[in-house]
Amino acid sequence: MNTTTSKSSLEPQNSLKNRVAIIGASGYGGIQSVSLLKDHPYFKLTFLGGNSSVGKRWNNLFPFLRLNSDPIIENAETEIISKKADYVILSLPNGLASQLVPSLLERGLRVIDLSADYRYRSLDKWCEVYVNEASKWNRKDHDLCQEAVYGLTEWHTSNISKARIVSCPGCFPTASLLPLLPFLKQGLIEYEGIIIDAKTGTSGGGRTPKESMLLSESSESISPYGVVGHRHTSEIEQLASEISGQNIQVQFTPHLVPMVRGLLSTVYGRLRDPGLTAEDSRTVLETVYRNQPHIDILPVGVYPATKWVRQTNKAMLSVQVDQRTGRIVLMSAIDNLIKGQAGQGIQNLNLMAGLEQYTGLLSSTFYP
Amino acid sequence: MNTTTSKSSLEPQNSLKNRVAIIGASGYGGIQSVSLLKDHPYFKLTFLGGNSSVGKRWNNLFPFLRLNSDPIIENAETEIISKKADYVILSLPNGLASQLVPSLLERGLRVIDLSADYRYRSLDKWCEVYVNEASKWNRKDHDLCQEAVYGLTEWHTSNISKARIVSCPGCFPTASLLPLLPFLKQGLIEYEGIIIDAKTGTSGGGRTPKESMLLSESSESISPYGVVGHRHTSEIEQLASEISGQNIQVQFTPHLVPMVRGLLSTVYGRLRDPGLTAEDSRTVLETVYRNQPHIDILPVGVYPATKWVRQTNKAMLSVQVDQRTGRIVLMSAIDNLIKGQAGQGIQNLNLMAGLEQYTGLLSSTFYP
Amino acid sequence: MNTTTSKSSLEPQNSLKNRVAIIGASGYGGIQSVSLLKDHPYFKLTFLGGNSSVGKRWNNLFPFLRLNSDPIIENAETEIISKKADYVILSLPNGLASQLVPSLLERGLRVIDLSADYRYRSLDKWCEVYVNEASKWNRKDHDLCQEAVYGLTEWHTSNISKARIVSCPGCFPTASLLPLLPFLKQGLIEYEGIIIDAKTGTSGGGRTPKESMLLSESSESISPYGVVGHRHTSEIEQLASEISGQNIQVQFTPHLVPMVRGLLSTVYGRLRDPGLTAEDSRTVLETVYRNQPHIDILPVGVYPATKWVRQTNKAMLSVQVDQRTGRIVLMSAIDNLIKGQAGQGIQNLNLMAGLEQYTGLLSSTFYP
Amino acid sequence: MNTTTSKSSLEPQNSLKNRVAIIGASGYGGIQSVSLLKDHPYFKLTFLGGNSSVGKRWNNLFPFLRLNSDPIIENAETEIISKKADYVILSLPNGLASQLVPSLLERGLRVIDLSADYRYRSLDKWCEVYVNEASKWNRKDHDLCQEAVYGLTEWHTSNISKARIVSCPGCFPTASLLPLLPFLKQGLIEYEGIIIDAKTGTSGGGRTPKESMLLSESSESISPYGVVGHRHTSEIEQLASEISGQNIQVQFTPHLVPMVRGLLSTVYGRLRDPGLTAEDSRTVLETVYRNQPHIDILPVGVYPATKWVRQTNKAMLSVQVDQRTGRIVLMSAIDNLIKGQAGQGIQNLNLMAGLEQYTGLLSSTFYP
Repeated sequence: MNTTTSKSSLEPQNSLKNRVAIIGASGYGGIQSVSLLKDHPYFKLTFLGGNSSVGKRWNNLFPFLRLNSDPIIENAETEIISKKADYVILSLPNGLASQLVPSLLERGLRVIDLSADYRYRSLDKWCEVYVNEASKWNRKDHDLCQEAVYGLTEWHTSNISKARIVSCPGCFPTASLLPLLPFLKQGLIEYEGIIIDAKTGTSGGGRTPKESMLLSESSESISPYGVVGHRHTSEIEQLASEISGQNIQVQFTPHLVPMVRGLLSTVYGRLRDPGLTAEDSRTVLETVYRNQPHIDILPVGVYPATKWVRQTNKAMLSVQVDQRTGRIVLMSAIDNLIKGQAGQGIQNLNLMAGLEQYTGLLSSTFYP
Repeated sequence: MNTTTSKSSLEPQNSLKNRVAIIGASGYGGIQSVSLLKDHPYFKLTFLGGNSSVGKRWNNLFPFLRLNSDPIIENAETEIISKKADYVILSLPNGLASQLVPSLLERGLRVIDLSADYRYRSLDKWCEVYVNEASKWNRKDHDLCQEAVYGLTEWHTSNISKARIVSCPGCFPTASLLPLLPFLKQGLIEYEGIIIDAKTGTSGGGRTPKESMLLSESSESISPYGVVGHRHTSEIEQLASEISGQNIQVQFTPHLVPMVRGLLSTVYGRLRDPGLTAEDSRTVLETVYRNQPHIDILPVGVYPATKWVRQTNKAMLSVQVDQRTGRIVLMSAIDNLIKGQAGQGIQNLNLMAGLEQYTGLLSSTFYP
Repeated sequence: MNTTTSKSSLEPQNSLKNRVAIIGASGYGGIQSVSLLKDHPYFKLTFLGGNSSVGKRWNNLFPFLRLNSDPIIENAETEIISKKADYVILSLPNGLASQLVPSLLERGLRVIDLSADYRYRSLDKWCEVYVNEASKWNRKDHDLCQEAVYGLTEWHTSNISKARIVSCPGCFPTASLLPLLPFLKQGLIEYEGIIIDAKTGTSGGGRTPKESMLLSESSESISPYGVVGHRHTSEIEQLASEISGQNIQVQFTPHLVPMVRGLLSTVYGRLRDPGLTAEDSRTVLETVYRNQPHIDILPVGVYPATKWVRQTNKAMLSVQVDQRTGRIVLMSAIDNLIKGQAGQGIQNLNLMAGLEQYTGLLSSTFYP
Repeated sequence: MNTTTSKSSLEPQNSLKNRVAIIGASGYGGIQSVSLLKDHPYFKLTFLGGNSSVGKRWNNLFPFLRLNSDPIIENAETEIISKKADYVILSLPNGLASQLVPSLLERGLRVIDLSADYRYRSLDKWCEVYVNEASKWNRKDHDLCQEAVYGLTEWHTSNISKARIVSCPGCFPTASLLPLLPFLKQGLIEYEGIIIDAKTGTSGGGRTPKESMLLSESSESISPYGVVGHRHTSEIEQLASEISGQNIQVQFTPHLVPMVRGLLSTVYGRLRDPGLTAEDSRTVLETVYRNQPHIDILPVGVYPATKWVRQTNKAMLSVQVDQRTGRIVLMSAIDNLIKGQAGQGIQNLNLMAGLEQYTGLLSSTFYP
């Protein structure tokens, strides 16, 4: 392993604005981003930044994801990044991105942030929800919180195209909001009493070793966690309130499922019009997403399995109605690491660069 | 394999009323029942009845569950069963039990039925919910539907002790009703709008091969099924209504989880008194179940994992309250094949024989 | 589901020889083939043949693998196939392919067979090894057995390019032969005493429901099967003998592993020259496969995980030497459904059409 | 959590020699030991020693394995242990046990060590194999290495009964030696060229978080590790050589399997008498183990699945012979945490206390 070489062996600069830096490359978000950009028809990986892996060659760390250039992982110095890249994907622990973003923007880079740092329009809200991170990092970037575009791609497409900084949604908000927003926007369901019961694979917990994420511990078991007060609650509520024009509160409960990838959100609401059928409701979804080839609306009675979207950037949505109780059940499956994280990042990056939004993203899984 | 021998090599009769027959011995319910009775301090297995495996020796079929007597699996003829057993456990497809039960009771046997055949007080209701089975089997046993005791042990203990026939609850009703009933009974939650989001391992789907239950299909995936109208809905509503004295309707959605055993039910309701805290709610559960060593009420903030109850007859309950939304979240984990099926059967059998109800049942799992 | 439409809605004919029919499209081999050809830059899917699914629309059966043309699955009539396709991929139970191949070749089609029907140069050998199939199907196609090219791509590249029929190797032979052949060819290991201990995921057992392949049965367990006399033994020996010029016998034992995809073969042999080091041995592999971008030779001391090659057409090889015992340990990981089945089929199809052999095949996995 | 209470609330002393201390109680070995002793008919748990968990109450750490006494985990001070216990089970990282054992023995306690510290008759050998541990801990207890009995129970029964210290075998040696030793002892197989290909679940890697043991990393994958030179090689060779009277060298390769528990060893050897059949070989095993109810010899053609022995103290053995190659294939399945670790510890403890060796140990699994 060559740890002394200081210059990167990555691609040289070019005149196109297509050079991408990934910071936090060896976590799951980073690995996905590398996977997706490695053979991307437009973008080129020109900088890989890390922390504990600085100085190591990528191919030694990831023999299963070889890069022809076999780059060395570097320190995330914004000065250097700005010379080597046009775009930066940040895949870092919460709080850390906010320390780099102001300097990156100043130097003219455009930023995709996969953390929660810019998901709230209000820095105060962030400080309230991410209280530990707020006490660790002293943030003053109120303006950037206002400026950042919340990157739920299908809902903020045009703003994303022009953004300097896009803050990608959490995995749970992505899966939960996609089926819910059309009904909230059109006022078809009651604003009160929305229940979101979500289920995620273990890769959502990241690559840093934790006892609870060991195969021995999490295999052959399902359990709830973060019951009442999980941080994604507020993120869901922010956009749901914005779209509906109401103050929405949701009851959100995540569960850990013994699988690597995949996230399923089951959302319960009450219909305003008890006569609305499942087919009607399906039409609502179909209409909103008809030009989105990566949003699949399943036939009534077909329910999504997370395996069906694994490694793709798709969301598969289904809706059912219980005439008896007047309730609607919305189901949404995504790959937590792709549409729920790095894939949505690339989708946004594509828009920022003026490309077709699904460029370089898988639209169907390898089954089984 | 000796398929010509016609007489069973099982235990001879004795004067105690402790002889048990299991019909449907080679499905998962049957295998669990054999496991639990094999070394039971009181009961003796004296008859194993089957269908496709008739004539085969048990130990050839189940080298991992050897019985010293190595019995031959026999046809379920009630005349013969009545000579060899005092109690019968029926672990059969829905509809089939009803063809045996009248004759078994007539001959003086006492019956534990693991199917749905006697779970409804009204035969008409059964015919409505189990419409396919009803069209296949011509049932006239209205009286037995009335007589049968619904075997949610902790709630019908004294009736079970005296019953001729106990109908054991489904796995989802067991897990869902245990945390919910105390709140319904005391009128602490609203009768409308109860949501039950449940998650089960694949063994709930039985041992008969189905494409959707192949490891290749169901591993690394989670999906909802039977959304709106799953048959356990009506079963949950029957007892919930009876205990509350109200006409309760619930929204029940099961999900298939990539694990062998285990069932988690997450139940959402609205508190009548918004001031009720999580600790208060925990006390409600603690009070109702304080004399039930197999019902564990977890501390507030500790949430049950199905792995914690695997292979035991326990239910682990936890409760959380969201003061902000006025909602209560009840969580309940069981082993679907034990407390959710055969274990509760043995628990009821113990009561019928005048034994301590947990005799022969595991109270703690092997972890991990 | 539209079952009355009789004409296919698949692509029209064109002048390029790029139309492919898949027969047996709804098994795992067929599904992979569809996945790989769906977005292939050269080939077009023009016919999907099935059996139990005839008359059904593809997108109804496979909502997770939508085809724009939403074709209807048709009967495999060779007359019709010959009008719609230039190439045929057969993914059928053993014995069945032999009933179609003569007629397909007569009509000028070129065939990729994924079954075992043409893996032996001698029909007599096939009848001996596949004795049940031989008694069911009356085969007389001695000549075709002689003509068919054994499609271990890296070893028969030029013959494959010109072949009318390519018989793709079994998954175990593919994984086991790739690391072994270089040492046999160069006479570096003893011809006697080769041990192959192989491990496969459950998808190798196919999509037809079997009790032993249920998640409930095969999860959380590993077991050997087909010990002594598994049919892939003779297939491994045929090519090993051909390449070495010796009569090679191997001891082959497969094991079933609780995972969907992936196959690992651990091969033990004795070095002829006890001084040969692990690095030397690695060089042997490196030299043979240096122009094969889909064969990765790992550094000494790095051992392949099947997860590293999942969904790719790669084989990852590693070698270690025990100076103390004079033994060599060869390790080889593939995806049993891709390089072990349909992917190698497409690799061969690419060669037959004069394309670069890896066209349309993934070279890196999505991790984790 | 009460961390201030300094006195244990565990059982008081009694006159029987039945008090057991467990040191290292919160690792997997410790947890199993607690599970097995919790309801043991003879032994009582009177001391739980730990490291990072000192001062915490057991039931807070392990809500799924409640002890009525809810003991506090204590520092492992030998003086205190000697007052509270008659026997000590050590479940500690390698090297650490050797720091406690001399003092424990001096104080009259009898010791079951689950680590590798006393598995070699020669301290020099230990220092050679466990070189890192040897450099960390300065050991001089040559005599104790000589005195310690290697606790492969079925082979050293009488010595174990009288021992002051029993060193329990590793999981791989246990599984591999049980089927192999009878053939070595009787000289039925060649002493050279024995190959052991073993497969273990992840719990063998312990409870300390490691990246490679995360579900996200190890699920859906199989890989070899420790190829050539794994430390259990020398342990297997020591007893194999002792029993055969020859200098035995084996080729041992472990593999990591995506399951929690279970270990399968596939052992290959060459028969001296090529006429020995599988049935003959089965008789060899049957004869040696006929009085061992926890060693199951499966019928020829039935191969063990690790699921069949999960949570039991059983070893399931099977043998097959390839007349064509003159080779024997031995298969052996155990639960790595029970017969491969803590269960064998209790089996030995039973013997030391004069009890029937299988007291308190499960003989059949809960299936599936």
